[in-house]
Amino acid sequence: MNSSKRFGINEVNGLSHEEFVKCFGNVVEHCALAASAVYSSRPFKNFEDVRNRFENFVRNLNQEGKIGVILLHPDLAGKMLKTGQLTAESRREQAIGGFDSLTQEEHEKMAKWNGLYKNKFRFPFIQCVRENKKEVILRNLEIRYGNSIEVEIETNINEVIKIGALRLKDLIVDVKAGL
Amino acid sequence: MNSSKRFGINEVNGLSHEEFVKCFGNVVEHCALAASAVYSSRPFKNFEDVRNRFENFVRNLNQEGKIGVILLHPDLAGKMLKTGQLTAESRREQAIGGFDSLTQEEHEKMAKWNGLYKNKFRFPFIQCVRENKKEVILRNLEIRYGNSIEVEIETNINEVIKIGALRLKDLIVDVKAGL
Repeated sequence: MNSSKRFGINEVNGLSHEEFVKCFGNVVEHCALAASAVYSSRPFKNFEDVRNRFENFVRNLNQEGKIGVILLHPDLAGKMLKTGQLTAESRREQAIGGFDSLTQEEHEKMAKWNGLYKNKFRFPFIQCVRENKKEVILRNLEIRYGNSIEVEIETNINEVIKIGALRLKDLIVDVKAGL
Repeated sequence: MNSSKRFGINEVNGLSHEEFVKCFGNVVEHCALAASAVYSSRPFKNFEDVRNRFENFVRNLNQEGKIGVILLHPDLAGKMLKTGQLTAESRREQAIGGFDSLTQEEHEKMAKWNGLYKNKFRFPFIQCVRENKKEVILRNLEIRYGNSIEVEIETNINEVIKIGALRLKDLIVDVKAGL
């Protein structure tokens, strides 16, 4: 997702299904199905319309589907960042959040709490790193570890939707917001 | 999906999320999310249990999600078969069904009716080609063209589930059925 090449809404409406899934298939990490489902509702009125449809797709999944979405996300500052296996979007976001240059101490803390969190919930901790400083995110990880699984499914899904909205802003001109 | 290497259910239950999505990510064509959602319900009792969970995932999608699944399928004997862009599973199935060696007349008929069907419904015609002869499928395409969109969404989804069950049989030993 390259911020220098953004679509106007008419261009989005002119894309074939194949092109749309290629461009928007990672608005929700690794979920081509989200893009394919959203495509079926075209033509879109504006940026907000596309954003809402991605949100609706994710929110309308049943509990198993929501956990499926969450499980397709990588750990923050995890193994896949180290081994270069992240999607382009995740790599960029983790770099913006400073997660590719943690101190040794921060890295150990992150690894410890990511591990505890995953042991408890059996899915990864997700937080939109473009909106928060890494110190805040580390603190949130510790706090959220104390929540119930129901709360964490919904909290992760809210973060997935925030991440998706920012990825969409990299792809579509938001006329209303003047962006 | 190679029929010579099939998992026992214990092996399936031992797979990591990454391995599971890699192996089962195309049980529903291009739907990594289906595999990821199904993974969250492990451990599985047997083949039937896995099959049912894939079916439930697809059936529990809302209308937009179901159309999203349908849109991720290729045309039968379409452009992607010619240009070698099909997934390994679709290529194999279309070959078993004889769709890679249609006569000129059959090919023209298929192209004509695929086009009419897609113009009417705005999604492709799906039928499990391993269960039917190509002559039957061509006739079905003509008949189903007369249906309503609601009927065709459900008919396509039923076919997606049949195709997925056969793909699963290529991957998991079905002890109960002695296969």
